[in-house]
Amino acid sequence: MSDVSAQVYTDVQQFYARQMNLIEGADADPDAWAETFTEDAVFEAGGQPEPQVGREAIRASVREGVAGIAAAGLDFRHWFGMLDVTAEPDGSLRTRYYALAVATPRGGPLGVRGSLLCHDHLVPRDGRWQVRRRSVAADGRRD
Amino acid sequence: MSDVSAQVYTDVQQFYARQMNLIEGADADPDAWAETFTEDAVFEAGGQPEPQVGREAIRASVREGVAGIAAAGLDFRHWFGMLDVTAEPDGSLRTRYYALAVATPRGGPLGVRGSLLCHDHLVPRDGRWQVRRRSVAADGRRD
Amino acid sequence: MSDVSAQVYTDVQQFYARQMNLIEGADADPDAWAETFTEDAVFEAGGQPEPQVGREAIRASVREGVAGIAAAGLDFRHWFGMLDVTAEPDGSLRTRYYALAVATPRGGPLGVRGSLLCHDHLVPRDGRWQVRRRSVAADGRRD
Repeated sequence: MSDVSAQVYTDVQQFYARQMNLIEGADADPDAWAETFTEDAVFEAGGQPEPQVGREAIRASVREGVAGIAAAGLDFRHWFGMLDVTAEPDGSLRTRYYALAVATPRGGPLGVRGSLLCHDHLVPRDGRWQVRRRSVAADGRRD
Repeated sequence: MSDVSAQVYTDVQQFYARQMNLIEGADADPDAWAETFTEDAVFEAGGQPEPQVGREAIRASVREGVAGIAAAGLDFRHWFGMLDVTAEPDGSLRTRYYALAVATPRGGPLGVRGSLLCHDHLVPRDGRWQVRRRSVAADGRRD
Repeated sequence: MSDVSAQVYTDVQQFYARQMNLIEGADADPDAWAETFTEDAVFEAGGQPEPQVGREAIRASVREGVAGIAAAGLDFRHWFGMLDVTAEPDGSLRTRYYALAVATPRGGPLGVRGSLLCHDHLVPRDGRWQVRRRSVAADGRRD
């Protein structure tokens, strides 16, 4: 009844869990996170005048983000859910998912900072998935 | 170790992601959402005096809901999680899941409006799943 | 592209959905919940001076927790997500996941009470999974 196999669907779930955990916590590793994107990847966020183009731009941006979160003393979690996966004829995947950003300051209480609608284009590279394009649009914003 | 196959489980996850996205966002399509229910479907919400009986009643109700959300200028997301799926001998499925309703007004901040416990009866129709009965009970309410 | 099969991954998702539902709702069953742990299981929570060692200690603790939630008139839900599963050579599983604790008092409104980072060691017993060790660390706490 589906157009993707269970293996592909759960691989994508696991990929996202591992990807986002790379930048969450005391051992955040922005470089490893950047490697989950292709060299020519594009990261597009609604509200930003220009997308980030290329892994190095994405790396610089996530480094800044991770440093800011650490400086603020926050535990930050990204939840992805309500995942839809569609396979393209060329073997790549189109995904749509919701994201929640949950931040807990030292001593609490936590805040759910944002709800986002996200679309990825995932491509297979060397036996794993990489993000070729990510587009995220924050709810509550009309661009 | 499970009584449902991975394919059935992920198909249901994907079905819910697609179903709920049909009524979330600028291109909300209440008619397409209504088609994810059988013609004789029943939608039962704790606190409502009577369930909605039949796809046309469900369609009318969701149209009203979607129009209300649009009029309020909200981005509204339904998250389903903690999914349990049990297969019936006749090929239908019983599911139980938690739902969160997340609303973001223009300019924010978002609010998590409700936590619900949901039960569905899903039946196979023409190579896809349809909801024959949905029962939702909002936490915090004692009916 | 993954190191676990879709069947294992979805079995764990279903196991968690069933496990946590056992202690959520009017028909909470702390004894059944305790049975999802091995007899020699260890439950470790950041901030507690000592872990709970053994199923009976875990059972006593969850009974107390469930009674406290009932006395407070709360509907309490645990959401697990962003699941990562790794298979060990001995057939056991290591999992990492995020958890949210959502509490709704009678009449509302709900509160998202906590965000946690969790690690489990799951072992196969009699055709199902059991938790041999669970370690949970609440965000916002530096132990």
